[in-house]
Amino acid sequence: MPRPFGDRQMMSSARRPLSAAAGNLLGIHLFQCPDAVGIVAKVSECIASRGGNIHRVDVFVPDDKPVFYSRSEFTYNPRLWPRDDLRKDFLNLSCCFGAQRSTVRVPDLDPKYKIAVLASKQDHCLFDLLHRWQEGRLPVDINCVISNHDRPQDNHVRRFLQRHAIPYYYLPTTPGNKREQEILELIQGTDFVVLARYMQIMSESFLKAYGKDIINIHHGLLPSFKGGHPSRQAFNAGVKLIGATSHFVTPELDAGPIIEQMVERVSHRDTLQSFVVKSENLEKQCLAEAIKSYCELRVLPYELKKTVVF
Amino acid sequence: MPRPFGDRQMMSSARRPLSAAAGNLLGIHLFQCPDAVGIVAKVSECIASRGGNIHRVDVFVPDDKPVFYSRSEFTYNPRLWPRDDLRKDFLNLSCCFGAQRSTVRVPDLDPKYKIAVLASKQDHCLFDLLHRWQEGRLPVDINCVISNHDRPQDNHVRRFLQRHAIPYYYLPTTPGNKREQEILELIQGTDFVVLARYMQIMSESFLKAYGKDIINIHHGLLPSFKGGHPSRQAFNAGVKLIGATSHFVTPELDAGPIIEQMVERVSHRDTLQSFVVKSENLEKQCLAEAIKSYCELRVLPYELKKTVVF
Amino acid sequence: MPRPFGDRQMMSSARRPLSAAAGNLLGIHLFQCPDAVGIVAKVSECIASRGGNIHRVDVFVPDDKPVFYSRSEFTYNPRLWPRDDLRKDFLNLSCCFGAQRSTVRVPDLDPKYKIAVLASKQDHCLFDLLHRWQEGRLPVDINCVISNHDRPQDNHVRRFLQRHAIPYYYLPTTPGNKREQEILELIQGTDFVVLARYMQIMSESFLKAYGKDIINIHHGLLPSFKGGHPSRQAFNAGVKLIGATSHFVTPELDAGPIIEQMVERVSHRDTLQSFVVKSENLEKQCLAEAIKSYCELRVLPYELKKTVVF
Amino acid sequence: MPRPFGDRQMMSSARRPLSAAAGNLLGIHLFQCPDAVGIVAKVSECIASRGGNIHRVDVFVPDDKPVFYSRSEFTYNPRLWPRDDLRKDFLNLSCCFGAQRSTVRVPDLDPKYKIAVLASKQDHCLFDLLHRWQEGRLPVDINCVISNHDRPQDNHVRRFLQRHAIPYYYLPTTPGNKREQEILELIQGTDFVVLARYMQIMSESFLKAYGKDIINIHHGLLPSFKGGHPSRQAFNAGVKLIGATSHFVTPELDAGPIIEQMVERVSHRDTLQSFVVKSENLEKQCLAEAIKSYCELRVLPYELKKTVVF
Repeated sequence: MPRPFGDRQMMSSARRPLSAAAGNLLGIHLFQCPDAVGIVAKVSECIASRGGNIHRVDVFVPDDKPVFYSRSEFTYNPRLWPRDDLRKDFLNLSCCFGAQRSTVRVPDLDPKYKIAVLASKQDHCLFDLLHRWQEGRLPVDINCVISNHDRPQDNHVRRFLQRHAIPYYYLPTTPGNKREQEILELIQGTDFVVLARYMQIMSESFLKAYGKDIINIHHGLLPSFKGGHPSRQAFNAGVKLIGATSHFVTPELDAGPIIEQMVERVSHRDTLQSFVVKSENLEKQCLAEAIKSYCELRVLPYELKKTVVF
Repeated sequence: MPRPFGDRQMMSSARRPLSAAAGNLLGIHLFQCPDAVGIVAKVSECIASRGGNIHRVDVFVPDDKPVFYSRSEFTYNPRLWPRDDLRKDFLNLSCCFGAQRSTVRVPDLDPKYKIAVLASKQDHCLFDLLHRWQEGRLPVDINCVISNHDRPQDNHVRRFLQRHAIPYYYLPTTPGNKREQEILELIQGTDFVVLARYMQIMSESFLKAYGKDIINIHHGLLPSFKGGHPSRQAFNAGVKLIGATSHFVTPELDAGPIIEQMVERVSHRDTLQSFVVKSENLEKQCLAEAIKSYCELRVLPYELKKTVVF
Repeated sequence: MPRPFGDRQMMSSARRPLSAAAGNLLGIHLFQCPDAVGIVAKVSECIASRGGNIHRVDVFVPDDKPVFYSRSEFTYNPRLWPRDDLRKDFLNLSCCFGAQRSTVRVPDLDPKYKIAVLASKQDHCLFDLLHRWQEGRLPVDINCVISNHDRPQDNHVRRFLQRHAIPYYYLPTTPGNKREQEILELIQGTDFVVLARYMQIMSESFLKAYGKDIINIHHGLLPSFKGGHPSRQAFNAGVKLIGATSHFVTPELDAGPIIEQMVERVSHRDTLQSFVVKSENLEKQCLAEAIKSYCELRVLPYELKKTVVF
Repeated sequence: MPRPFGDRQMMSSARRPLSAAAGNLLGIHLFQCPDAVGIVAKVSECIASRGGNIHRVDVFVPDDKPVFYSRSEFTYNPRLWPRDDLRKDFLNLSCCFGAQRSTVRVPDLDPKYKIAVLASKQDHCLFDLLHRWQEGRLPVDINCVISNHDRPQDNHVRRFLQRHAIPYYYLPTTPGNKREQEILELIQGTDFVVLARYMQIMSESFLKAYGKDIINIHHGLLPSFKGGHPSRQAFNAGVKLIGATSHFVTPELDAGPIIEQMVERVSHRDTLQSFVVKSENLEKQCLAEAIKSYCELRVLPYELKKTVVF
């Protein structure tokens, strides 16, 4: 057993990069453009020219397609490189390479991503997200929580939301009315939406209207076990491994680009119930991991049905 | 995305074993005695003679020692086999085989195990246990929580405990005074004690005085990285895997029989801080798993430093 | 680095169970019958009555079906319990419980299982099996190897087979002629057949005519990615995990009861080629594990599409 | 089951990067120098200036030390950038950044790394390496195999080596004579040496005299279980996880920088024998992985006891 004054005490030093010690900030740049010679050189030269110091670079160029993806982490002095100049400099890069995508974030300067979480009867993913958020492990602001299911025993969720002044909306759905218009209004101003086991299929028009990314957790190992009751499907198929999949939502049901997948072993001793329990545990981790990667600018769509996850 | 009325609705059937449908109960029998011919026969005959139906048996006989360990799960009719007869029947078995250990539990009849949780500054394990307990995934009654560290930001723990009427005691320790006498009084009446990252070494006299099992979580892969700062030790050793270990407490520091171990991959990119974060995640799972196995009568000491975990 | 006289030297003691020291033998009994009270008692009493000492028992009774499965390992004295009496005793048990299945093996007395291995162009699974067999890690006799594909670079397979005097048959197939009649004749006298990436679908009549178990390895995570090109299917689906599945062959393509599944992580950096390489590594382990479990009497069909793997 | 003409047929396209299609080559550059602004820019500019196209970059700058590590993969046109100019260009970079380490390789032009493998009684790692090498999964030339142990049943190793014309030397060691001088002469001209469970400790003078990297596999999870009999140590400690560690050899026994570690679960049912069997399986994978990473220029020493493994 460790004595008092344990590991935590020693982290401060490890926590502070030398370069940051001087009040420097961390910048993250995500980039996608047609492949060409010299992109890395130009991006890194742009950062170096402002005194920025690259700590990490991820580059990906598929073997069979002339597309270029990169993610750069750098520390820089905000006085020498004002936030707005930074924006402009990377904008110029985008132009000269015809970038399909160019995002830059300075976590300590920029506002956190704003999200809305939609949930339903099974609230294990919602509750897990709220805890991670409370513990500071989810770098987002939660604009609101929307559920199409309400019940007395939900009061621990409601109590949590009240305590943290997070608006909660109960929008019961019917086959005839999915409340998409009201949802659309509530999620205005969010940067992306999380479906934490939300039991409804979003219409194509809804997706178009929102126009931003929606991350869903599916309690099955896609592309198998799409649609309803994946745990029951897996149970009946006699699989020896079950899984969970977090993916972007597209009009086609459970067919959006996969961000993360996780599995756990099952045996003949597992019941449908233990399949569900094990699955719920996977869903929580898999969804949280996807959101975290997304917020850290690690996730890029790649081709029609794929993702780059740096 | 699953439609409304998902897997949960279908579990009732999977949940209810046929035999249990008739108001039968589940019994668990854990047994240790010198190896001999016919033990399994006698134990199962004893159960069958009362109309008990064995669903699961685990037997272990080491290759190199004449010791017999078994764990049996059976369903039975409590009207045909009253709780007290059940106790007596298995007591007779113990006698005729000279058992070192014989425990029988009927989870739906017997009181839950009573535990006390001791914690310190790092309360992630404590908080994780409280949540699992709240969600009904930890089949124990928590008599009290004792901490030798208190701070404003602990109020979420205190609030939780108040809400659930679980006594909380703040017993600050000093090198000179470990408050062991007060702790001993507070943990009277518990079935076992959990050290959820408690930052103190218990004295041999304390262990003797308590006389029951104490389960500790160590944030390192024992037998390496004993004592303080295991995460820093592992970080400095340049390991590529870190781990956590739950074990029984013995007078020798961090040398008690190991119940469960878990690992996670680390790389050169990990800092001491991320070592600690990854470790904390392992500690939660590893400690909860050990407690769960212990409550389900799956854990037996084996030789001096080993455990059987059925 | 270990010094001379390492672990191997000390295993002799660990290797020899006390009971075996007296020239005792290990017996394995696999049993399936309708569930009833007292089965374990009767089976273990039968073994004990002959002085047999049970070392391990696995019992499985599904929650929702009155079926009983068990596997028992015991040591016994072959002079006190002749092989033929052993057979008869367990036969009597089968009768009195109306067993659907009852197998007993004494590995040190009974002949090894005889198998035939069918392979095709990709011979990595075949070659892996041959090596495990050579190293004594596959407790079978290989009656013959049949391939519908031959090429110069296969000479390492042929050389291996020649060296070990294992017959090799080259039976090229055409859409019109699957050579099933010749194959049937060649696999007569085998206990089961292994399809080590054999690129043909067996006809229902073939399966009927053979009448014994056929174990196949599929290079995908069934039930997804059935049929041809599972690696390409997985690659195009943008999955983050790929897998392999060993299963019993049934008339329905790739839909037989699953014995074992294994997975490995893939990322956007993986090419179709690296998918195949990673998959091949999984296929070898997954197939070998299934065969090993089958030979150790650990595998039982369960319901239509499931297996019990003790 | 896949039909004929499976995945392999489709790889050719996936195999050939567009840029390589034009007869371009892959270059790999590994770099270590004091951290400074603009290193990535200069390296990538150097590559771009010759028309080289970066496919992948790994950069690592520790939080708490001003050191810079990078590994770059790029395709280039060997007619526009002759091998010798390439060498010179990167040499200039090394000078201007005061690099502690700068290596560049063009796998399709440069000779493979030459290695010597030292083995002893347990030859599972040696045999596994030979098979991977035969299957083209180990990009090295094996100058020779040296063993201090010989026995009839080794003839499969000898036969293999004869068939592939790899010199084999039997140098039995005694406590008094480790044959280091003869070994030194035999390993002259190698790029690095592999200790595949070689049962001897190399003297400091031997390491100095050789002067290049030596990779060892240890059948325990370092830093625990150093020295002899790690499997027995782990077995006696009652661990629930065993592991293997590949690391660089330094004068201090089993304390060199760790390259790779792998673990597997064990239980009370495992014997010392099964510990050894499971360990051997880990050792093979762990050693092969380390050698592969080393040959691909992914491994860099980092501080005294650590490695960067890109």
